[in-house]
Amino acid sequence: MRMSKLFARTLREAPAEAEIASHQLLLRAAYIRKVMAGAYTWLPLGWRTLRKVEQIVREEMNASDAQEVRMPIILPAEPWKITGRWQTYGDLMFKLKDRHDRELGLGPTHEEVVTPLVAGEFTSYRDLPVNLYQIEWKYRDEFRPRFGLLRGREFLMKDAYSFDRDEDGMRASYDVMFEAYKRVFDRCGLRYRIVEADPGQIGGDVNHEFIAIAEVGEDQFVYCDNCDYAADLEAASARAPEAAPLTDLEAPAEVATPGRSSIDAVSTLLRRQPAEMLKCMLYDAGGETVAVLIPGDREVNEEKVGRVMWPAPVRPFSDEDFEHRGIVKGYAGPQGLSEDVTIIADHSVRAGKNWITGANEADYHVTGVSQGRDFRVDRWEDVSQVREGDPCPVCGGRLILSRGMVVGHIYQLGARYSKPLKATFVDEDGTEQPFQMGCYGIGVDRIVAAAAEQFNDETGLMWPKALAPYDAIVVPTNMDQPAVVEAGERLYGDLQDQGVDVVLDDREVTAGVKFADADLIGYPVQVVVGKRGIESGTLDLKARATGQREQAPLDDAVTAAQHLLATVP
Amino acid sequence: MRMSKLFARTLREAPAEAEIASHQLLLRAAYIRKVMAGAYTWLPLGWRTLRKVEQIVREEMNASDAQEVRMPIILPAEPWKITGRWQTYGDLMFKLKDRHDRELGLGPTHEEVVTPLVAGEFTSYRDLPVNLYQIEWKYRDEFRPRFGLLRGREFLMKDAYSFDRDEDGMRASYDVMFEAYKRVFDRCGLRYRIVEADPGQIGGDVNHEFIAIAEVGEDQFVYCDNCDYAADLEAASARAPEAAPLTDLEAPAEVATPGRSSIDAVSTLLRRQPAEMLKCMLYDAGGETVAVLIPGDREVNEEKVGRVMWPAPVRPFSDEDFEHRGIVKGYAGPQGLSEDVTIIADHSVRAGKNWITGANEADYHVTGVSQGRDFRVDRWEDVSQVREGDPCPVCGGRLILSRGMVVGHIYQLGARYSKPLKATFVDEDGTEQPFQMGCYGIGVDRIVAAAAEQFNDETGLMWPKALAPYDAIVVPTNMDQPAVVEAGERLYGDLQDQGVDVVLDDREVTAGVKFADADLIGYPVQVVVGKRGIESGTLDLKARATGQREQAPLDDAVTAAQHLLATVP
Repeated sequence: MRMSKLFARTLREAPAEAEIASHQLLLRAAYIRKVMAGAYTWLPLGWRTLRKVEQIVREEMNASDAQEVRMPIILPAEPWKITGRWQTYGDLMFKLKDRHDRELGLGPTHEEVVTPLVAGEFTSYRDLPVNLYQIEWKYRDEFRPRFGLLRGREFLMKDAYSFDRDEDGMRASYDVMFEAYKRVFDRCGLRYRIVEADPGQIGGDVNHEFIAIAEVGEDQFVYCDNCDYAADLEAASARAPEAAPLTDLEAPAEVATPGRSSIDAVSTLLRRQPAEMLKCMLYDAGGETVAVLIPGDREVNEEKVGRVMWPAPVRPFSDEDFEHRGIVKGYAGPQGLSEDVTIIADHSVRAGKNWITGANEADYHVTGVSQGRDFRVDRWEDVSQVREGDPCPVCGGRLILSRGMVVGHIYQLGARYSKPLKATFVDEDGTEQPFQMGCYGIGVDRIVAAAAEQFNDETGLMWPKALAPYDAIVVPTNMDQPAVVEAGERLYGDLQDQGVDVVLDDREVTAGVKFADADLIGYPVQVVVGKRGIESGTLDLKARATGQREQAPLDDAVTAAQHLLATVP
Repeated sequence: MRMSKLFARTLREAPAEAEIASHQLLLRAAYIRKVMAGAYTWLPLGWRTLRKVEQIVREEMNASDAQEVRMPIILPAEPWKITGRWQTYGDLMFKLKDRHDRELGLGPTHEEVVTPLVAGEFTSYRDLPVNLYQIEWKYRDEFRPRFGLLRGREFLMKDAYSFDRDEDGMRASYDVMFEAYKRVFDRCGLRYRIVEADPGQIGGDVNHEFIAIAEVGEDQFVYCDNCDYAADLEAASARAPEAAPLTDLEAPAEVATPGRSSIDAVSTLLRRQPAEMLKCMLYDAGGETVAVLIPGDREVNEEKVGRVMWPAPVRPFSDEDFEHRGIVKGYAGPQGLSEDVTIIADHSVRAGKNWITGANEADYHVTGVSQGRDFRVDRWEDVSQVREGDPCPVCGGRLILSRGMVVGHIYQLGARYSKPLKATFVDEDGTEQPFQMGCYGIGVDRIVAAAAEQFNDETGLMWPKALAPYDAIVVPTNMDQPAVVEAGERLYGDLQDQGVDVVLDDREVTAGVKFADADLIGYPVQVVVGKRGIESGTLDLKARATGQREQAPLDDAVTAAQHLLATVP
């Protein structure tokens, strides 16, 4: 490809709305262009990189015996209503009506399509297992699309779905995908961690996220500095502390805390640590009252509360709830809560006693409150948000907080979809059984963004070789010198003949502009032909990622370029 | 791939709604499955065939210096309103609103996206020409989706858009695409004709359709039995006949034709030929009255009338129009029409004289009416529908009527989109000029349907080698014979090692079932290993398309299979 023809105009400045490096650089280097909020056109350079990721994903899926199919983007509403996701996705799903007034949705994922499909074809346990995948654009009507490709409304996903006759089979299919995912992200050159994750809107039990590490990532996770444990913040747990012996109990005593309803305000007033206070948080779980107890220096993880109370939907008390149920907002304590309130205590509450907590009376707290004597606990659960420094649940090591972008997410779904959709097969014993399913997503365009985020410097992109749109660029620096132009053309031809994907910067612009664009676009290898080099029979090579520079004889240029290309990551 | 694993269950019968062979066979052979009206899932076999077509298209586009991009499917309404297509597409475009109540459409084609894109990047005549393409799913909310892939609501298009500085450049870019299209359809093995076509909703002047010939096709076209001329029915013209000398004119005479307002009724009553009558058809063109004259044995082509009167919208007179404008429905004649009526005569009217036509009075016609003396003609135009047997406009040869499926359509658009969208570049003389555009579509999934329609017999599909999902199938016929199973496995491995895309039918089913499925799915080459063959050291080969059968020594099986594969179309 010749730069003079390439549909790519680099930008000196990124639009102000581009907040993170990947978004800025993919715009500046002419990989993508915005069409509207959360929807982009992929320009030739970006499209080549995206297709390279797609091909890596496809190869690893095929190598894992997954079979490629392609399902529609426009989908009938009915199966989504049966599984309940038409409702739970709500506004996040693009919905429309066709000319005959039938309700359609744009697929955000395809469990509701693939499950009836498999049930229609594979009817016997002998047919199983099977794993189908597609690489297709998906749709979510995000409230606030941002960060370029990271939170778009149209995004390219690889989604795979495994169907097994039993849970052992499902776990085996899951493990095959787990390994395939590692190969995909390794081949893409990403720095990533595999974490235990929250199942979110997809459902199911076991699931893992593959998170590309990035400071600007929207997804927080923890990992252990001592062992392999890692989990996203919504799913992470810390080792429960030892229970404190319930001895040396103080007597409860009311203290006036006028106008102080926050942990900070009370602890300041009483000159006590937040950790000595007991927060009592109130929730409505499908009409029932739930009180969650947690030390004052910790936060409740509401996803965990949601899982504990599942399938009841959980929401924090509103002002009306406090009023109607006779609990004093800001001064709630567990002592004396009626029997119809479910009291859940985080495991960390076992480590304390003589708590300071609300007096269930405006402007008063109580000190010296202890579990057992002063309040009951109906359920001990892990409902706290993990913090950096918490002990690892596996080995007790120190948990480190980190950020990243989820690029892959795999789920053991069990019968979450096959049951409501009545997708069954005939088992060996003649009984109808629901398929045991797994589902497996990769954010194909997110990998591009994650790689751009991980591999850049102040001058531009530094693609891993596997993802670069081209392997190399030939830069003739003096276009007014026929010998330079000719050497550039020859080298361009020779490299193409050797199967190197190469660009020739044949534009009539200064060497400075060419170098800046080459650095910005991020070709792994730059081959520079200049006037002085022609005179001395040499050319210059630069590896973009390492900055390594070499000189090579002009006659040996192709070999030198190939050699340098072979050494870059 | 092993048949025991392949996600494909063939059907004995196609669903009743499948009316044509391609639809029936693609369903029966497990290439596609319906999700809803006009939307299909591509199963692994179908997906492989579709990807082969896609790759052929991509290679020929790249070889023609077109650059691949990818534009969103969800699109903002604004540019479509500017070009007027938001309105003209009407219900045919899927429309929706996002959560912020912004209007979006699903792209049926992408002029409104690519035009501003190019204008944003390429600002100088030096940047041109450029041709961008994508291979992407497109959407049309067809009133009545049918014929499987032929009239779907979601379909895979390759759409390319060329941008030039002037009309000569546009024509050159068009010619490059014209040649590339021939290579695409040649490589796909299709029987097709290139015809001059009507621009329809896309607009512009010159355009050509590439029509795969098929009796069940929805698109009618004519071609000359003597020269290269071909055109679709909406665009075709016949050579205008010689003008008759306006001598021997009869005197006009009124005849009573009570209750006879049709050509048939009048010609029967008067015992004259329909060709001797002059039809006078009334239209409204943006508020003005247009009379179209044509011999009684021919039909008006209303698309042609629309083009003649463009940009005024043309519609046939309603009963109210006749009443308001004082013209007698069923008895209109051109004589005495007022000056504010535009009288258009088809060229074929020159060949007649002494016409019988309406008397502009209920229940009366006039005989002996001749042009010049009795009525004026404001414009002589080609406004008639071509019929089989009409003289070719190029050579006078005989025109033949035929049917097919449009698989490609290319357009010279000129400034049809660049002008309203204000997409301009700075020309050499410093002036702002609108881009001269061309657009070029290929129905990628339609090619699959067209090939299935052209290449099949009563037992199934007979793919051209370039489109077959796999090159060959190995069929061991006696699965209870270890030597047969083993020979099949060995051959399967050996063929794979030689780069042949091969399926092994390792299912525990009868040889009859295997043969039927192999014929239905349409692998180009079948390699059959049986018990008797093993004993005699031979195997059987069959070319699906030609029916050619061969025997080969077992030891020589791979070479024999490769050789047969090389000879099939």
